Amino acid sequence: MGFWKGWFSGSETATGTKTAPVEEEAVESMGFSALNGESIVFSTDRNIDLYELEELCDAVGWARRPLRKVKKAIQHSFLVVSMWQVRGTQRRLIGFARATSDHAFNATIWDVVVHPSFQGKGLGKALMKYAIKKLRAEDISNITLFADPHVVDFYRGMGFMTDPEGIKGMFWYPN
Amino acid sequence: MGFWKGWFSGSETATGTKTAPVEEEAVESMGFSALNGESIVFSTDRNIDLYELEELCDAVGWARRPLRKVKKAIQHSFLVVSMWQVRGTQRRLIGFARATSDHAFNATIWDVVVHPSFQGKGLGKALMKYAIKKLRAEDISNITLFADPHVVDFYRGMGFMTDPEGIKGMFWYPN
Repeated sequence: MGFWKGWFSGSETATGTKTAPVEEEAVESMGFSALNGESIVFSTDRNIDLYELEELCDAVGWARRPLRKVKKAIQHSFLVVSMWQVRGTQRRLIGFARATSDHAFNATIWDVVVHPSFQGKGLGKALMKYAIKKLRAEDISNITLFADPHVVDFYRGMGFMTDPEGIKGMFWYPN
Repeated sequence: MGFWKGWFSGSETATGTKTAPVEEEAVESMGFSALNGESIVFSTDRNIDLYELEELCDAVGWARRPLRKVKKAIQHSFLVVSMWQVRGTQRRLIGFARATSDHAFNATIWDVVVHPSFQGKGLGKALMKYAIKKLRAEDISNITLFADPHVVDFYRGMGFMTDPEGIKGMFWYPN
């Protein structure tokens, strides 16, 4: 708590995230920290500025979604993880993911995004590891996701399996 | 409400499901109703007797799960649907499914089960249609599931697609 506390008290809380309980973790051990006074910080605080999140999703070319629905989805996700570049008193949202769950057996990870300027540095992997750690800490044993073709190998490298024992991910869309 | 109300008032509420608000629907239009005084009824009441549910899951050979966790999963599912054979004042749980969701974009259906004695009669399809209708009524547009190999064709027949645009369902299990 110390880090954010100090950080917010030194800023104007520009994103309005001062009230929620914040859990954060700096990736000291991965060498991202303290490079030119810059840190990469992970958080499970779901009080994320929706415009900042939209900007991040724009950067990877996702179709825009109504913020009202995005807000609802975040509220009703079991886990929300975000990744921040922090420099002095400034921070920037550079990664995001969330998971739905029954709080008991299964979780499904959605909306995994890393800003293009921060891709290729192992940060997507760090974000996913953080999410998996949080889900495992809640005793969720079956973690699932639906991967676009170009990221299947990324997830495979993290231990995710496609179609284990012939189980198929299936989708139903309205006509 | 009338049906269940009348039914409970005429019984000893053997399963203890008398208090929850109940939403039910008889499948009159599908010809299951009023055969020898028997009806098939669908419900979204999540106050289901866990032992009765366990019995149903036993009947299809599923591994037993701690009831404490099953209870938690039901509590935290977005949608719980059950299917009942009703004869006079007696009812029997013959089908079940539930869905997790972010309440906005995505839902994932889990634990779809129909008692073996009632399979092959179109009841699994009716149960799934009921679940999809309920999810659609909540404005969920992306309905997903993970299908075992022997039921992939069943879901395909209902309009579910495997790997649309190369999207792969992926699983992570603890080592």
